Amino acid sequence: MNQDYIKPDNWSVIEEGFNAERVKSSESLFSIGNGAMGQRANFEEQYSGPTFQGSYIAGVYYPDKTRVGWWKNGYPEYFAKVLNAPNWIGINVSVNGEQLDLHTCKVVDNFRRELNMKAGWLSRSFTATLQNNVVIEVEAKRFLSLELDEVGAIEYSVKPISTDAEVVFQPYLDSGITNEDTNWDDEFWDTLKVCNENNQAFIEAKTMKTEFHTCTFMESEVFVNGTAVAIKPVIESDSNSISFSYSNQVKQGETYAINKFGGYVVDTNHDKNELISAAKNVLNLATEKGFDVLLDEQKQAWERIWSMSDISISGDVKAQQGIRFNIFQLNQTYLGEDSRLNIGPKGFTGEKYGGSTYWDTEAYCIPFYMATKDQNVARSLLEYRYNHLEKAIENAGKLGFTNGAALYPMVTMNGEECHNEWEITFEEIHRNGAIAFAIFNYHRYTGDYSYIPEKGLEVLIGIARFWQQRATFSSAKNKYVILGVTGPNEYENNVNNNFYTNYLAQWCINYALENISKIESEYPSDFARVMNKVKLEEAELNKWKAVAENMYFPFSEEKQIYLQQDGFLDKELITVDHLEKAQRPINQKWSWDRILRSPYIKQADTLQGFYFFEDQFSNEELERHFDFYEPFTVHESSLSPCVHSIQAAKLDRMEQAYTFYLRTSRLDLDDYNNEVHEGLHITSMAGTWMSIVEGFGGMRVKDDMLSFTPKIPKEWDEYSFKVNFRHHILKVNVNQSGAKFELEGDSDLQILVNNSPVTISRNSLLTV
Amino acid sequence: MNQDYIKPDNWSVIEEGFNAERVKSSESLFSIGNGAMGQRANFEEQYSGPTFQGSYIAGVYYPDKTRVGWWKNGYPEYFAKVLNAPNWIGINVSVNGEQLDLHTCKVVDNFRRELNMKAGWLSRSFTATLQNNVVIEVEAKRFLSLELDEVGAIEYSVKPISTDAEVVFQPYLDSGITNEDTNWDDEFWDTLKVCNENNQAFIEAKTMKTEFHTCTFMESEVFVNGTAVAIKPVIESDSNSISFSYSNQVKQGETYAINKFGGYVVDTNHDKNELISAAKNVLNLATEKGFDVLLDEQKQAWERIWSMSDISISGDVKAQQGIRFNIFQLNQTYLGEDSRLNIGPKGFTGEKYGGSTYWDTEAYCIPFYMATKDQNVARSLLEYRYNHLEKAIENAGKLGFTNGAALYPMVTMNGEECHNEWEITFEEIHRNGAIAFAIFNYHRYTGDYSYIPEKGLEVLIGIARFWQQRATFSSAKNKYVILGVTGPNEYENNVNNNFYTNYLAQWCINYALENISKIESEYPSDFARVMNKVKLEEAELNKWKAVAENMYFPFSEEKQIYLQQDGFLDKELITVDHLEKAQRPINQKWSWDRILRSPYIKQADTLQGFYFFEDQFSNEELERHFDFYEPFTVHESSLSPCVHSIQAAKLDRMEQAYTFYLRTSRLDLDDYNNEVHEGLHITSMAGTWMSIVEGFGGMRVKDDMLSFTPKIPKEWDEYSFKVNFRHHILKVNVNQSGAKFELEGDSDLQILVNNSPVTISRNSLLTV
Repeated sequence: MNQDYIKPDNWSVIEEGFNAERVKSSESLFSIGNGAMGQRANFEEQYSGPTFQGSYIAGVYYPDKTRVGWWKNGYPEYFAKVLNAPNWIGINVSVNGEQLDLHTCKVVDNFRRELNMKAGWLSRSFTATLQNNVVIEVEAKRFLSLELDEVGAIEYSVKPISTDAEVVFQPYLDSGITNEDTNWDDEFWDTLKVCNENNQAFIEAKTMKTEFHTCTFMESEVFVNGTAVAIKPVIESDSNSISFSYSNQVKQGETYAINKFGGYVVDTNHDKNELISAAKNVLNLATEKGFDVLLDEQKQAWERIWSMSDISISGDVKAQQGIRFNIFQLNQTYLGEDSRLNIGPKGFTGEKYGGSTYWDTEAYCIPFYMATKDQNVARSLLEYRYNHLEKAIENAGKLGFTNGAALYPMVTMNGEECHNEWEITFEEIHRNGAIAFAIFNYHRYTGDYSYIPEKGLEVLIGIARFWQQRATFSSAKNKYVILGVTGPNEYENNVNNNFYTNYLAQWCINYALENISKIESEYPSDFARVMNKVKLEEAELNKWKAVAENMYFPFSEEKQIYLQQDGFLDKELITVDHLEKAQRPINQKWSWDRILRSPYIKQADTLQGFYFFEDQFSNEELERHFDFYEPFTVHESSLSPCVHSIQAAKLDRMEQAYTFYLRTSRLDLDDYNNEVHEGLHITSMAGTWMSIVEGFGGMRVKDDMLSFTPKIPKEWDEYSFKVNFRHHILKVNVNQSGAKFELEGDSDLQILVNNSPVTISRNSLLTV
Repeated sequence: MNQDYIKPDNWSVIEEGFNAERVKSSESLFSIGNGAMGQRANFEEQYSGPTFQGSYIAGVYYPDKTRVGWWKNGYPEYFAKVLNAPNWIGINVSVNGEQLDLHTCKVVDNFRRELNMKAGWLSRSFTATLQNNVVIEVEAKRFLSLELDEVGAIEYSVKPISTDAEVVFQPYLDSGITNEDTNWDDEFWDTLKVCNENNQAFIEAKTMKTEFHTCTFMESEVFVNGTAVAIKPVIESDSNSISFSYSNQVKQGETYAINKFGGYVVDTNHDKNELISAAKNVLNLATEKGFDVLLDEQKQAWERIWSMSDISISGDVKAQQGIRFNIFQLNQTYLGEDSRLNIGPKGFTGEKYGGSTYWDTEAYCIPFYMATKDQNVARSLLEYRYNHLEKAIENAGKLGFTNGAALYPMVTMNGEECHNEWEITFEEIHRNGAIAFAIFNYHRYTGDYSYIPEKGLEVLIGIARFWQQRATFSSAKNKYVILGVTGPNEYENNVNNNFYTNYLAQWCINYALENISKIESEYPSDFARVMNKVKLEEAELNKWKAVAENMYFPFSEEKQIYLQQDGFLDKELITVDHLEKAQRPINQKWSWDRILRSPYIKQADTLQGFYFFEDQFSNEELERHFDFYEPFTVHESSLSPCVHSIQAAKLDRMEQAYTFYLRTSRLDLDDYNNEVHEGLHITSMAGTWMSIVEGFGGMRVKDDMLSFTPKIPKEWDEYSFKVNFRHHILKVNVNQSGAKFELEGDSDLQILVNNSPVTISRNSLLTV
């Protein structure tokens, strides 16, 4: 926890003062991205202190050979890792022959870093006294262009204030790059070509094994007091780097500046034999516009994003900063323009989780993207899984399932499973249900049914087949049971009849059956095409029905609650508030067996089911289950507080909801878990958005209508958000005395407010 | 399975014909050892085909840094590995300048290998036609001396039969040795010194990290037609090897031979600064005796071993060969003369399981050693664990247990845990019970109670403390439960209330309580000493009692059986005979989750409890449980068939008992699991001995008396074995018409035969 480090501000993340111990954390917090690439906030100039270098290209990964202690049949061969890519931001700066390095400077004053979320840029300024006693003022600004998403731009200036000085800018490219996280110290990159042409430099490199061909490029221009100057650079290169040195004698008080443009082109978007020419094209586009024009376009692009996705909060700047930081980072990570991409738990801010796709996307991220983007973005996320269906069927095959049963991987880059803990890889199968639930959720929200006959049905059938085969009949219970699973609460492994999993399995089968019927009657040609492919017979459908109709759910008659799994009540039921502080977080303090036999819950598990299938439980049931399970929940997953915040709000426990909200929204800014140096918790940020929209705003879709039960924490004056619902843009504004609904668009919209239908006229405002 | 490869023989293991594909398997089968060291049957001369080189020194290990995919708190830092030690057996042989190499010879005829178990030597002979067309006859004989247990001897001869030839013997030492199994490709050995003095050569080397200092040594002598000849060797050495080349022009039909003596001295037995002088001493002792005298002493030493431990079987040579092979290998591995040593699952025959100690010793090996050696050997095995008690308390501490609770490691070399799968390391805690059971078993068999007040009591208290803390109270069941364990059946992980574990836990507490009372009244000074150390208060004892008195056991009223664990009856209860052959062994064919949710049992689990605590269940109960569990048992652990053989015999199912017996006794000779190339299953060999003595012979200890219910498989004419029971040597001989009991020693002995007491007079024979 690091509560007051980041300065509160409505639109920016601000750090003041230089502290070497904070460098790695701030590198995470100030990360920038544009959906196609992203990077940690590493310094442009040399830095010899502790740093975690990272620049990542979306979709470019390395299959790092699996490392285990003891091999189990079925483990995947590799763990896909988004790679630390060649460095293009680097600018060595020397002043009278001494390298500028904040770790070795005598004094660093006025250090200030700002991540301007409104306009999408990162800036840094400081005054440094070098070892050689020259004092300089430095300013740097950098952004990754949303407009030209293969390009980033840097403006970097040095002003000697103590004396005249010889200043050399040495912008460079470097492909001699490694990951911090490698299993076997493999080389990840193979540099193919280092070259330059006029002011432009290029490094062609390919990833080992996966053979993604990339070209990293740069072009720079230098200025004195804002006027371009023609300095002939000294060009040096070796097998994996190239630099241009621009040396200048700078007078005291003069500003010597460099604009550097750089980035990547990749063979996933270009012919691999034409990468240098593609790089030239994009560099020329960027340099023709120049830094200021690109920056202006960046502001406009972010303005468009914010105009739809912003949530404003009045009266609570920390809450405001938190939610904007979350929304900003989500948009930096994924913009929904490429159905080959997805949302890694750490986005482009670190190496952990390998940048791969988890069930987080379906369970947490889709609602945010559905409501704040065009519905095609959510559809694109669904298609990502449709495109992986064959791999999911192969994956299930490796575990012994047959006949087209599909098990989506726990962790994946290209549809293949990457994870290698048996209790997760083979057993945390509820993820399969989240894939189906996302299809339902998409249809429920957008009203667009067309995805299901076109693509979704095949996915639903593969998933239903899996559940039918995975459930087994217990003669003792005269019910179908699902043995040996890990639920969302990963602090239980290999349990039997996890309520959430069983419920989801039953729902998946029923939902598949329902869609099969509907498509058979309403989309006969799609039906024929799919049936021809999947060969689904009546006998098999009867097996599905038998499982769904006779699914077992563990239930305590005494407590009138569904049990998280068989035997949960045999645990020592000591609530979290009785745990000593010194024992927390238990995942750092306790051995795994102790965690497993404890009642402690990492994140919503039974309650995740109550969240997904809220309509199927009464408020009294929710309250009973919330009161039973939340006191055992340690919230040691970033995905935990948001669901609890939503449910607390639903139960009118606004204090608790607000506490959970702060925890989710400022998890990284305040570094709750002392781990922000590893990267940000990107996917849980979508949960933060849900905490406000679904939690405080009470937004749901009911009977094809948007429904709201607006509430507001007592700490806030007002908050507002916008949602895109079926081509209507609805702005919701809630304050302590009521709510206002404002509609953009060309038709009226009927919504439910506190369960009463009201109609909002187009372009009008409704106050409740 | 490789059923007819090894030639049946009563006293030898014989291989005929050379087959490069069998080399690695035969290297395991023909392994030799003397308790202090052991080695695979690698060829002396160069061999360029597939081979698995291995020479091991008891107790000399390397702590190989743990490798896991995903770290869990509490994992050990290292896995101890018995090391492949420097090679002293090597003798390069060149004939007219060509290296003898069975992999490159034109023809290999008359290849024969014999492991003579009666006399304890390994021989090999063959006729080879070299690439240069010279034909030679080769004979080699080798043994590791029981008398001088730091020394081995080799007699190796070459007879050119096609022509005269220049033959060079180049005996060498080589410390440039690696393990096949390393986690991180570390170097294991650091060579300190390579030197020679006259005919003797020495390499001093130490193990990395553990710093065991060793000296490997050799001395050789050459002969022509049996007469020593003085050939001045050419000496060559480098940083980790030294060789002496003895070149001789050998006439057609003449025999040129070399005797080589070699071995190891270790700083665990000598001053590390005096290793070379220690090596000289032992070499001088060996060479003064010479090969033939040493070999004769070897025969006599084995005669003494066999006189006590042999089991003879008439009418079934394969069964005879099997049991002798098992007894021979056990004695090669461990002779009970050093309480720092123990019995690794693969002994000195391979690298798997790291040569470390498992619960196999207590559960399977102690009965063999108690009955066939002096009782001090079993006591020495108990002391091994006593000496590790502090480490076991530390180990429990790492998992959160306090107040002197002891958890013995699953795998260990020096008392520290080595294993790193959470479901084993943290959860397969029943091993702790086996340590206590061995104390009980030792006292039951030997009648020597003195061990318990002196040492055992502290161990029993540490173990009881662990169980009391590990059990937790279930309000739902109003009983104590033990959650999250892995039983002996490792095909279940993280289960609740494993019957075997719960039963053993209860027994351990009761047994500790019983001994505390007895020692308090009968050994007051020991009692005072121990209590002063362990600080055991009445309140704590009351907690123990509460747990033992209120332990929960899963039980099916309908089937009247104890359940292996909670929920066992929820599985799809399809017996093994319904499994397709193609699915077996399931541990190679199925993913881990599929194994876990299946009902299939790797080795006796509930039935292991019925084996340990036989007296506490009726025959009807045993039969009911055997009939329920055995049909689900796949016997994919080498430790499985023996227990089932004993129980089948008890239930008068002699056909089944015999089948299980063959499977256990010829597991390696017939390579049931196609894995003998990795090494032999040493610890399960003690189970084979039990299959005959306890199974067919029905030997038990009842009311301080030996008890027998002799039976015999119909395939056999007769079998006999000897046991050392409380300083009486009793020979038991069973044939199809009855049993004979023959007593050596100076007093009478009352025994039970078919539950009736009979008295055997000293030095007499009783026929029943």
